[in-house]
Amino acid sequence: MDSSSKLSRRAWITTASGVVAAGLIRTQTDAIRLDAQEAPPPDPTKVPGRLVSPVGQRAPTERPERLLRTEALSSSSRTPLHELMGTITPADLHFERHHAGIPDIRLENHELLVHGMVDRPMVFTMDDLMRYPRVSRIRFLECSGNGGGVYSRDRMPTEVTVQAIDGLLSTSEWTGVPLSTILREVGVRDGASWILAEGSDSAVMSRSVPLDLLEGALLAFGQNGEMIRPEQGYPLRLFIPGLEGNTNVKWLRRIEVTDQPTHTRDETSRYTDPLGDGTARQFSLVMDAKSVITFPSYPYVLPEEGWWEIRGLAWSGRGRITRVDVSTDGGRNWTPAELQGPIFPQSTVRFRHLFEWNGRDTLILSRATDETGYVQPSVQQLWEARGPQTSYHQNHQRAWRIARTGEVTFGLGELV
Amino acid sequence: MDSSSKLSRRAWITTASGVVAAGLIRTQTDAIRLDAQEAPPPDPTKVPGRLVSPVGQRAPTERPERLLRTEALSSSSRTPLHELMGTITPADLHFERHHAGIPDIRLENHELLVHGMVDRPMVFTMDDLMRYPRVSRIRFLECSGNGGGVYSRDRMPTEVTVQAIDGLLSTSEWTGVPLSTILREVGVRDGASWILAEGSDSAVMSRSVPLDLLEGALLAFGQNGEMIRPEQGYPLRLFIPGLEGNTNVKWLRRIEVTDQPTHTRDETSRYTDPLGDGTARQFSLVMDAKSVITFPSYPYVLPEEGWWEIRGLAWSGRGRITRVDVSTDGGRNWTPAELQGPIFPQSTVRFRHLFEWNGRDTLILSRATDETGYVQPSVQQLWEARGPQTSYHQNHQRAWRIARTGEVTFGLGELV
Repeated sequence: MDSSSKLSRRAWITTASGVVAAGLIRTQTDAIRLDAQEAPPPDPTKVPGRLVSPVGQRAPTERPERLLRTEALSSSSRTPLHELMGTITPADLHFERHHAGIPDIRLENHELLVHGMVDRPMVFTMDDLMRYPRVSRIRFLECSGNGGGVYSRDRMPTEVTVQAIDGLLSTSEWTGVPLSTILREVGVRDGASWILAEGSDSAVMSRSVPLDLLEGALLAFGQNGEMIRPEQGYPLRLFIPGLEGNTNVKWLRRIEVTDQPTHTRDETSRYTDPLGDGTARQFSLVMDAKSVITFPSYPYVLPEEGWWEIRGLAWSGRGRITRVDVSTDGGRNWTPAELQGPIFPQSTVRFRHLFEWNGRDTLILSRATDETGYVQPSVQQLWEARGPQTSYHQNHQRAWRIARTGEVTFGLGELV
Repeated sequence: MDSSSKLSRRAWITTASGVVAAGLIRTQTDAIRLDAQEAPPPDPTKVPGRLVSPVGQRAPTERPERLLRTEALSSSSRTPLHELMGTITPADLHFERHHAGIPDIRLENHELLVHGMVDRPMVFTMDDLMRYPRVSRIRFLECSGNGGGVYSRDRMPTEVTVQAIDGLLSTSEWTGVPLSTILREVGVRDGASWILAEGSDSAVMSRSVPLDLLEGALLAFGQNGEMIRPEQGYPLRLFIPGLEGNTNVKWLRRIEVTDQPTHTRDETSRYTDPLGDGTARQFSLVMDAKSVITFPSYPYVLPEEGWWEIRGLAWSGRGRITRVDVSTDGGRNWTPAELQGPIFPQSTVRFRHLFEWNGRDTLILSRATDETGYVQPSVQQLWEARGPQTSYHQNHQRAWRIARTGEVTFGLGELV
């Protein structure tokens, strides 16, 4: 393989010359943290290691963190996508978006009321719910405001990480009871077409969702093998594969079956998209296909020319990703990337594309296609369709610029 | 659905009577922990929640822990399988088995030497390795000593958790560079047929593996989306899907390509199976098909008769699990369980079987079949094939007894 022999030469050179490129492609934060640690033994085989402990720890030099934002009680944390591999997001690095913080709830005290247009309104304890047959599914969750910072022609940043731009995205193995099981229990009446889902945080976050978008929905209490964490809705959240994050109501305490949307505060003050023609669209709930390149991205620096693997994630709320194309010339030519199977519906898929960087100023982009044939649009297409003021669902193609120095910055500004 | 309406009645009763069955099916340990916590607010909607933090936390009442064992520098930690859901094991709950503790290694200092019967012996820094094309795969890892405590006819325990019996099993999404890529780089010579893999712990743990078992092997530096943790070999381990845990050498520093097994200390003093006829088998590396029921299992107590979902995990080192049968009458009759797809090769698969407990003394068992047609044996079959003294690969069927009181204990003693 050509690429293999190129890589081989580099491996030789690096080893022979003793040059350690490590510092160059680690982030500054990591370097600072590394300095703060005690020196390791020069030869680990000559020192007894530490013994086991009840819960494992990350390496002292590996401390991925979420990027935080708080304004009064409104807060968010963003997943460090640029530091992650594969598709699973560790539970403690899953993004968050709360309207009134994280409530303190005990399993024993939590109940779910299901009522409205049903034959048998019921209250379920967590023990009741956890006794039903369960399913587990690897699925993404994304905030509909993700990417909002790279939509305005006038404020297109350059020194910004993929975490800051698109870190309101994470993927977990979710476990729970199908919502359909519980809706069968209560008996949904003829004419019902929506539900209202309500959380028990102090914002009493509430969203309306049409029944026909709830096919794969779970009453979820498990995440990545363990009980869901407080930040993700402990002990119970609604999980609706493919729909915008805020409909996946955390700390779920009530589901009302209705024949129309409830138009709660949360879905009128927020989560409505103003359009270019002065109207607005509501209940734009499905997350459209999207992709992001996670490597190389800011603040990485490519230390030399040669073969590099472009890596990223692609996902679609409408089903499976079928194709991701990568451009290394600012969008003129596109080449299909390799997708890491198996590909799940409504899940992130890792894509990879080996390219030879020739040391010139280069703009790299990715473009996802899903099983419906939908192709991730350019920002120009999105401006045209929705106008410049829309504030959610900005799933347009992103770009990274690799400068001659190897420094990588956000590059969409070069294309607008 | 019949089962659904039965469950429905229970939900009604529990709610109407105010009986909280929670305490009964939580473990004692959990109850103690719960008592130690500060009381939560009576109504979480009336109290502002806490804000976001860089790294998430488990709920204060959810503290899964590994079960530890240390003897001098030899140590292990076992995954709390009875508390987990789905298939992914959180990285900090992954089992461990170390011969000399966990060494303290920095990414920058670590190197891998690949030499022996190769055209171009090479040393790789972590930066070198992490530049190659990567793959990610969800795969199990199991210690070949897992289950050794329930093999002897004379010492068959009853009050023992699935964690204590079979907790040397975990499943992760592993990311790394295919070993085959690196073997192509160095150029394996004709006549080579084995490798020796050596770790940089103070035991210098070393194992021989035939080349023809290394097809899917990875030089792994990623686990569940993040850098592998020190307990799992940071910054580099050999990961060989389906082979016994100890061949997946952690803190990997050297691979020597050879034309025969090296017969290191670790593979003669350990990891050799004495057989009934006085001989022993060596290099029994592939983990045979196996299954365990995780619910109900000790120390759970079924609070009442009725429909319960039997849940467990099945896996095979030889490929995909194709079938899991469950018996609820001590092994006389078997019924296929539902398997939670998608099913990966060399991965745990979650199985589920809804059964109606009639309140009588009941013995439940599970039995896995893999794509080669191999069927998980009974303990009698294993005794016959390998004799009573073999000390690894005890993958025989397990059993749990549900007493009339609802108390669940390990039940294999009832069948031997």
